Amino acid sequence: MARVYNFGAGPAVLPEEALLEAQRELFDYHGSGMSIMEMSHRGKEYAAVHEEAIANLRRLLHLPEDYDVLFLQGGASAQFAMVPLNLLTPGQIAEYVNSGAWASKAIKEAKVRGSVRVVADTSKDIPTRLPALESLTFSPDAAYVHLTSNETIAGTQWAVFPTTPTPLVADMSSDFLSRAMDVRQFGLIYAGAQKNLGPAGCAVVVIRKDLLERCPEDVPIFFRYRTHAAEQSLYNTPPTFTIYMIMLTTRWLIAQGGVEGIERRNREKAAKLYAAIDASSGFYRGTAVPEHRSIMNVTWRLPNEALEEKFVKEAAARGLKGLKGHRSVGGIRASIYNAFPPAGVDALIEFMREFQAANG
Amino acid sequence: MARVYNFGAGPAVLPEEALLEAQRELFDYHGSGMSIMEMSHRGKEYAAVHEEAIANLRRLLHLPEDYDVLFLQGGASAQFAMVPLNLLTPGQIAEYVNSGAWASKAIKEAKVRGSVRVVADTSKDIPTRLPALESLTFSPDAAYVHLTSNETIAGTQWAVFPTTPTPLVADMSSDFLSRAMDVRQFGLIYAGAQKNLGPAGCAVVVIRKDLLERCPEDVPIFFRYRTHAAEQSLYNTPPTFTIYMIMLTTRWLIAQGGVEGIERRNREKAAKLYAAIDASSGFYRGTAVPEHRSIMNVTWRLPNEALEEKFVKEAAARGLKGLKGHRSVGGIRASIYNAFPPAGVDALIEFMREFQAANG
Repeated sequence: MARVYNFGAGPAVLPEEALLEAQRELFDYHGSGMSIMEMSHRGKEYAAVHEEAIANLRRLLHLPEDYDVLFLQGGASAQFAMVPLNLLTPGQIAEYVNSGAWASKAIKEAKVRGSVRVVADTSKDIPTRLPALESLTFSPDAAYVHLTSNETIAGTQWAVFPTTPTPLVADMSSDFLSRAMDVRQFGLIYAGAQKNLGPAGCAVVVIRKDLLERCPEDVPIFFRYRTHAAEQSLYNTPPTFTIYMIMLTTRWLIAQGGVEGIERRNREKAAKLYAAIDASSGFYRGTAVPEHRSIMNVTWRLPNEALEEKFVKEAAARGLKGLKGHRSVGGIRASIYNAFPPAGVDALIEFMREFQAANG
Repeated sequence: MARVYNFGAGPAVLPEEALLEAQRELFDYHGSGMSIMEMSHRGKEYAAVHEEAIANLRRLLHLPEDYDVLFLQGGASAQFAMVPLNLLTPGQIAEYVNSGAWASKAIKEAKVRGSVRVVADTSKDIPTRLPALESLTFSPDAAYVHLTSNETIAGTQWAVFPTTPTPLVADMSSDFLSRAMDVRQFGLIYAGAQKNLGPAGCAVVVIRKDLLERCPEDVPIFFRYRTHAAEQSLYNTPPTFTIYMIMLTTRWLIAQGGVEGIERRNREKAAKLYAAIDASSGFYRGTAVPEHRSIMNVTWRLPNEALEEKFVKEAAARGLKGLKGHRSVGGIRASIYNAFPPAGVDALIEFMREFQAANG
């Protein structure tokens, strides 16, 4: 079968160029006589990969000197735990915005460690939405404010981030590097790799250096950010092949014009798809309110579940894969991350029109 | 360059068959039109990989029903922290054998969480060695006893494990699946993947099920073993490509006659190499005492450091790579894990003879 259009929410589509290069050199990395997977993380070949991955990320993020980039294992779920372990000191309260399933998981972990104030809760709202900026109030005494920049399941995304009196922590797992932003708005950003960065098995953490010092001494050494910052993420053996794939993916992203270039393409893809939904006279109904629609995960419903099932099945038969909504909410979800090709969006829109004509 | 002999300590040599299969299907997994890296961890293709990896490990270990196999991220270093978080309840003492650098790291993490009694310390002994079994005494009130089955840096390995009144916990990162053993001797075994199992980025944890219940509620949900056991290591997105490589490597291992088959080959490789060291009239001096010599990491010295440097350099020029001892101790180290081919040991021995003839 030819390469399909993979709308899966993650692990997700990767750039073809990155996959083909990884395949070419998988058995013999640059004539070394071994695979990159078989190489010491302290050797010069892997060191070059590691350093390029960090440099690419710094360049793509326009990262100021007082921020570190870390590669940690355990994905975003480990970060749900590591953020409060490192930043929520005893006696303090952490503020969380509950915007859906992923924010709820982050809150649950924070409550194991300390006190949490939920500053807004839109997690049960249908249509899905985020809180209005003007409805949010923050305490200057909080340890930090946590939000989820893009809710993968709900298909919602913050267009503008709130200004907070304490460090803003953002889970950007599903929209990292998809749009330009000023990192200085954030104290800490984390993102699981398996959407916009590479295969599963690594989280990228971007942290303002002063926050490294906050972690109490009762936290295991391995779960302190400063342990990894002090060793450029080589305190222990990092997931070398995953970081190699991140290096190839970020190299590809630079060739696309960086975050600014990919943002234009992402906005075009999303705009086309939302326009197709909105032009369907209600046959397709967008799940999120228009002002909080995600440009990464586009979610919608059909008139009934039987039609949704038929839609997913017939789309798959045409090579449009992974369109089923998350098992917790149903419906349709098209994840159109950085590496998802614009031609795949066109193919989906064409299919949507035909499907409506046949079933509407 | 042709495939070299990779004596690196980890990330380390993988079976050629596993690498070639991964390469063949990297861009298009079984005609699906996508890479295994790009697939949902909840889809049927990856589910089959995940289940086979677990089934292969259970078969290779002859694992009783009352043990679970978990795939966790963070390697053995994360386990240094997770073991005390999960098993060292407040007020209890954990007993550790300090046999070298890795055991020392495990002890350091345990002390962050609670009280530690070091039951024996051979970490500074030269020649390197392990404590004599008859010198060890254990308390029936301890939470558990922890040891490192193979010290990768020192080149020492437990031939027989002590009998303990409390659960025995073993870091088997560098000799997992290399020799037959009765898992029932252990309450918990863990091993970073990057020596005998696959690429870096995953640890396999084998745990007796009753121990899952011990973890206190103040431990982050993500760092509790029972969280992952309850979801067959799919609580969050697992490192899917790494587990796929573990599946291919364990499939290869079964084809080699399982642990019993590979143990015979491992013992032959190690015996040949130690015989060559011992036959050198003192030009090569084994680092470990004979009764604790490792069959995975063979360590030795030359008459001086200048000769050691020359040895490593000339060996590398012949395609015998990664022979430099760990930076903390110097000397020579040949890591000859499961996937290391016997012909590479023969080539090394031939080189050792020539080098001695020229420099002895």
